[in-house]
Amino acid sequence: MSKHARPDRPIHDLLARRWSPYAFDDRPVSAEDALSLFEAARWAASSYNEQPWRFIAALRTDAAAFDKVLSCLVEANRQWAQHAGLLALGVIRTTFSRNDKPNRVALHDLGLAAANLTFEATARGLYVHQMAGIDPDAARRLFHVPEGHEVATAIAVGYRTPDSRLSGELRERETTPRARKALREFVFGDDWNEPAAFVPARVSGT
Amino acid sequence: MSKHARPDRPIHDLLARRWSPYAFDDRPVSAEDALSLFEAARWAASSYNEQPWRFIAALRTDAAAFDKVLSCLVEANRQWAQHAGLLALGVIRTTFSRNDKPNRVALHDLGLAAANLTFEATARGLYVHQMAGIDPDAARRLFHVPEGHEVATAIAVGYRTPDSRLSGELRERETTPRARKALREFVFGDDWNEPAAFVPARVSGT
Repeated sequence: MSKHARPDRPIHDLLARRWSPYAFDDRPVSAEDALSLFEAARWAASSYNEQPWRFIAALRTDAAAFDKVLSCLVEANRQWAQHAGLLALGVIRTTFSRNDKPNRVALHDLGLAAANLTFEATARGLYVHQMAGIDPDAARRLFHVPEGHEVATAIAVGYRTPDSRLSGELRERETTPRARKALREFVFGDDWNEPAAFVPARVSGT
Repeated sequence: MSKHARPDRPIHDLLARRWSPYAFDDRPVSAEDALSLFEAARWAASSYNEQPWRFIAALRTDAAAFDKVLSCLVEANRQWAQHAGLLALGVIRTTFSRNDKPNRVALHDLGLAAANLTFEATARGLYVHQMAGIDPDAARRLFHVPEGHEVATAIAVGYRTPDSRLSGELRERETTPRARKALREFVFGDDWNEPAAFVPARVSGT
């Protein structure tokens, strides 16, 4: 499978193996795996240990619950995410519970938790595809998400199936080689757009 | 060391080992490690593969550059972060480069990249402590961060030293047992505040 990262510097195998597929088969994700995924998210870092993340989650084995979460995705994402084994919405509490002041980094910390979940999934042979393409108003209405909280993302988790299941643009996306900026394009040092001193001039990317 | 996570469900050892110390010794982080840390960040997922993250980074072996980044932290963080081996500011581009529309999840995706960096650090025996307590205006001025970008976080990376280096409140924080919400408090199912069907009533936390 050619979608693994081809890092310019050694990185942990579970980071290199991660990518976001569109072709999920309908194989269920077990409750045991799901619990470990959210347990991994649980131990993420957060500002003042606020743990601002909330998830609304359903296994595909629980068809009614799964379809309810699925209905909160935009149509283009429903098309492929319906074959995932686990769907979740990522929600944040926008203020600190200790003083009700705005938590400027709540969305960032949801990202930390989601990355932990993804790492655990990869270790279990599962794939994760995160989405920003959701219908937050539908989610708020269907799940009674209270004020002070924002529905931010969706997360599909499941097993891969061959690309041949896909057609058209999704198949093209699935088979396009992965690309990333070079380190010197995003790791700066003394000034903006000036690579950090430890980044060799042509270490990474082309 | 009792600060490792005590998960209720099995999670990968590198996730359980991660925590955010205050007691760093002055041991340098090698350029080789630093490059792999940012390489790990590089391969994170992002909405439309925008890769909205930018880092302004310095090794402590490069004293002038290190002090410049350090000066962008709030005083309370400078106190302990000055002993880290690597300091970085986390910056986001707030719009998509392909169409200049707002990227609602840029901050989330910085979190995904920072978590990848953290995971790689843990695999290398390094510890990461992220901060929201920064002076974004100072950072913008000193590093000429352009419009359309926001300085969001800081990241300290280094080697641990015994707690005895710390005093007062920091020492207390360093030695307090870690706590997390129970799964049923943040993984919901059919409705808000109602645990997901696959979460046993008392699986997690107390």
